[in-house]
Amino acid sequence: MKLATIRREDRTAAVRVEGDSLIDLGLPDVGAVLASPGGLDTAARTDGAVLSAADVVFAPLVPRPGKVICVGLNYQNHIKEMGRELPEYPTLFAKFADTLIGAHDDIHRPVATEQFDWEAELAVVVGRQVRRADEREAEAAVAGFTVLNDITCRDWQFRTREWLQGKNWDSTTPLGPYLVTPDEVGGPRPALDVRCAVNGRVMQQDNTGDLLFDPVDLVRYVSTMIRLSPGDIIATGTPGGVGHARKPQIFLREGDTVVTEIDGLGRLENRVITEGTA
Amino acid sequence: MKLATIRREDRTAAVRVEGDSLIDLGLPDVGAVLASPGGLDTAARTDGAVLSAADVVFAPLVPRPGKVICVGLNYQNHIKEMGRELPEYPTLFAKFADTLIGAHDDIHRPVATEQFDWEAELAVVVGRQVRRADEREAEAAVAGFTVLNDITCRDWQFRTREWLQGKNWDSTTPLGPYLVTPDEVGGPRPALDVRCAVNGRVMQQDNTGDLLFDPVDLVRYVSTMIRLSPGDIIATGTPGGVGHARKPQIFLREGDTVVTEIDGLGRLENRVITEGTA
Repeated sequence: MKLATIRREDRTAAVRVEGDSLIDLGLPDVGAVLASPGGLDTAARTDGAVLSAADVVFAPLVPRPGKVICVGLNYQNHIKEMGRELPEYPTLFAKFADTLIGAHDDIHRPVATEQFDWEAELAVVVGRQVRRADEREAEAAVAGFTVLNDITCRDWQFRTREWLQGKNWDSTTPLGPYLVTPDEVGGPRPALDVRCAVNGRVMQQDNTGDLLFDPVDLVRYVSTMIRLSPGDIIATGTPGGVGHARKPQIFLREGDTVVTEIDGLGRLENRVITEGTA
Repeated sequence: MKLATIRREDRTAAVRVEGDSLIDLGLPDVGAVLASPGGLDTAARTDGAVLSAADVVFAPLVPRPGKVICVGLNYQNHIKEMGRELPEYPTLFAKFADTLIGAHDDIHRPVATEQFDWEAELAVVVGRQVRRADEREAEAAVAGFTVLNDITCRDWQFRTREWLQGKNWDSTTPLGPYLVTPDEVGGPRPALDVRCAVNGRVMQQDNTGDLLFDPVDLVRYVSTMIRLSPGDIIATGTPGGVGHARKPQIFLREGDTVVTEIDGLGRLENRVITEGTA
């Protein structure tokens, strides 16, 4: 099953995607679908107004997640090519919900950064509340997957020893377009090609099967600390090929187009606009 | 003016505190008061049922803030005594709302930590939406102040290079008891004595006037990156005297009582209980 959150005049709506048709589920967004008593089971059966997928405008898949938890270095090939040891624990940081934009929205590049960079990521969408989940509970808590680009201001990321301030700029982080349930992509540990292209040039290319900490591992690990709830997002980390690690470095500029794509999940396509005044 | 969020059977309620009387404001919590059209002005005038302050049970002052932004090293005396240079920028990290508890709730010490530590902090409560606030806008965006203890699992904090996983354990972080408006404490940059005592022994003692980055600075800085909204919390950092910096180190154990107090703002008193199984 595929779900999305779309914009309709002054509100958003959760829809089930069936080919070129969108079935209105009568709830404001996919987060509300997951938090509703019937959850995905009810969403699979709900009848509603049928809309055309043509000209759809996507909102962030979950507009107000309670948590957006991000993972640092997690692709094994990339860790090894950097000459590092495989880490024992995932490195975690957070993004605030106000960073999120829809699958085709403009990315707001603040004038305050000179180093605006991309990070294509597989994102896990949590479907039920869990705490201290065992393996089976963690698998069952994965509602599905989507695509996220953890757009980063590198100069701000490295201003201090915590990454947060490079990662939390308003309206920078596309999330969507779809929630795709695990059964559509081979289960809760999918092996899918992930790519990021800037102005048509492929910058990142890897496979989500290479993740050191897979989606189920991450649900287990984070739920050791804190409850996970429907609509919470875990961004699983990015493969090699980011702009600041290139020689010479490349950063995003006004007018650039960033395409972030995972096979079977969908495609984000976002233009970079400049925001603010110097 | 002093506001609080209290528990009433199966719900919470925002109240205005007038001596021993609590005036029910007809809204579920202080976050909702700040987000309502009239905000604090309406809260100052609202009539409602009068409750007794005796036997009141406090909920987290803002139960579901959109952001809890925390600052690292920020007390100048403490930075200097550690032999460090004063930093140019504040170090920022995040807490999730599920960490928050009420002013007298039990602190849940997970069995997974051996190094459970205290961090008394002045917390800023944001009262209006701002982005790229100038000094005057930042002052106006400070709805008031409260007390927070950023209880930390040091062993998890230092597992990886990001602090998040030491700072985000479920039901560990008391926030409250009151929102006190700036006019009651000398303005938006208050100089107030802050203390933390464990089982009656004073462990931290300083004055919020010593903050390197004061509340107005922090609202300005964070709002450069991302919009701040009513109910958002900024925890301004902790003074010297935490358990892991002591010789010998001291950590919290089951049954300990932690009192966190800021003159003019109020007092958190929380017992430590053990949670989970080994």
